Amino acid sequence: MIAPRRVLVTGASGFIGRHALQPLLRRGFEVHAVTSREPPRQAPPGVRWHRADLLAPAGPGDLLAAAAPTHLLHFAWYAEHGRFWTSAENLRWTAATIALVQAFAERGGRRAVLAGTCAEYRWGGPGPRIEGVTPLEPATLYGTAKHATRALLQAASAELGIEFAWGRVFFLYGPGEAPGRLVASVARALVAGERAATGDGTQIRDFLHVADVAGAFAALLDSPVTGAVNIASGEGRSLRDVIAAIGAATGREDLLDVGALPPRPGDPDELVAGVGRLRDEVGFVPSIGLRDGIEGTVAWWREQAG
Amino acid sequence: MIAPRRVLVTGASGFIGRHALQPLLRRGFEVHAVTSREPPRQAPPGVRWHRADLLAPAGPGDLLAAAAPTHLLHFAWYAEHGRFWTSAENLRWTAATIALVQAFAERGGRRAVLAGTCAEYRWGGPGPRIEGVTPLEPATLYGTAKHATRALLQAASAELGIEFAWGRVFFLYGPGEAPGRLVASVARALVAGERAATGDGTQIRDFLHVADVAGAFAALLDSPVTGAVNIASGEGRSLRDVIAAIGAATGREDLLDVGALPPRPGDPDELVAGVGRLRDEVGFVPSIGLRDGIEGTVAWWREQAG
Repeated sequence: MIAPRRVLVTGASGFIGRHALQPLLRRGFEVHAVTSREPPRQAPPGVRWHRADLLAPAGPGDLLAAAAPTHLLHFAWYAEHGRFWTSAENLRWTAATIALVQAFAERGGRRAVLAGTCAEYRWGGPGPRIEGVTPLEPATLYGTAKHATRALLQAASAELGIEFAWGRVFFLYGPGEAPGRLVASVARALVAGERAATGDGTQIRDFLHVADVAGAFAALLDSPVTGAVNIASGEGRSLRDVIAAIGAATGREDLLDVGALPPRPGDPDELVAGVGRLRDEVGFVPSIGLRDGIEGTVAWWREQAG
Repeated sequence: MIAPRRVLVTGASGFIGRHALQPLLRRGFEVHAVTSREPPRQAPPGVRWHRADLLAPAGPGDLLAAAAPTHLLHFAWYAEHGRFWTSAENLRWTAATIALVQAFAERGGRRAVLAGTCAEYRWGGPGPRIEGVTPLEPATLYGTAKHATRALLQAASAELGIEFAWGRVFFLYGPGEAPGRLVASVARALVAGERAATGDGTQIRDFLHVADVAGAFAALLDSPVTGAVNIASGEGRSLRDVIAAIGAATGREDLLDVGALPPRPGDPDELVAGVGRLRDEVGFVPSIGLRDGIEGTVAWWREQAG
């Protein structure tokens, strides 16, 4: 008989979290989902929901006692669009994340996978960002907080007696994205028949559909791989290409106003992942190409509008 | 009229903390001292004591409300001899330290100075460890935790609206040191007429008397200097020299058994600080030489024995 694998998913009603539940069920995990809000109405059946605030002073003890997880998949963090890069909330989430992983380990947890960010890497210069090669020199408070969290927990994992892995998320898009973000804002505007003003779109980014991002995390959790793993497509696309794909999917290229907004200071020219670890060690290959992914996202915005 | 400067000193009954109270009073601070234990009997008059556990789930809110500090001098950390290098308690103290500094800033605190460690630096190779020059590549969980704490809080200080400085402590000794540590253990043994077995003593270290360490922290707090500052003498001494000084001060060189213990794995050959920032920017110069300091320490152990 195989002992049950129970995963506690934090941020389970968030953008990545809610897409991770189905892939985890498919891999045979008993899924315990945590949210600080109401559980979402469209969650897959079989998921056990817990309502908890990971920032509460009492800490995660009651939650961990209730779920008794063998695995932890931690997505929850401060993600307010436009503010998360610099907010002091990053400190609260760093402290809460350290406390969560320590409590998880002390209660017998075996394997923890956490969400990191491409903002941990040095941003200057061309070429792929590669785990263990590209210097970790975050330019933002958000990146610094994620980097500090990873470095500490990875160094502590042997003492804690857990396996520890860290998925560095690059750029993502898909149904349910916060409306202020690039793909969501352009798709929403074009579906609504409104003008969409953007920057010049020359920057190269590594985009992955949120369902693939979530699937990659489920695969990483279900693997024995430890340390940092980029969660990305490995392919650079210009923002201009992505915007054009939204124009094509909506048939409203006429509403695009590319170049209307000024460049954002500090925005790097190119951010593309090396995906050797994800592909060769975790064994995950994305299944949703950019055009299909954008078409699905536009369809979702049409549903919201209708 | 000058607004009062109120400093909250954590770990105030600890080895460095208790030596810092008098220098802070002399510099005109109103001193609020925190300890999780009984306040020490020999504390200088004028210090206001608070009893609080910084690891308690409720956090430091009540303490900060009671003391209303403008300045923070944070020494408290897990320091159990022989265990602090690898203990998971370093995670709890990282989280508690982040929470403390954030709460201090949110309640109007202006300047925070925290205790770091030479274990944040890369240990290999000769030459002084210099702030901003020597790579930060901690080899231990303790060093990693301190490094992560410093990197995060320094990056957050502008957002928090505080000045932030970080004193990297090298090696220290003096009255009241924990009996398991080198100088304390040799001094105690020789005063008691017992044999003192040590390693071969070839390692070069940068020793500073605890009163100078504490005085340097008080000077750093009382300065506008921000970022990391080594708290050290700048002079390398072999452990053999230090042990010999204890032999001379006790007159019991006959009890020394240098070389009886094997080398400790991972112990670096040389750890000496560059003290340019401490001397030239903070303006602090140590006042207690090694021979005088060792003699005073031996006298203190004689008092304990008598």
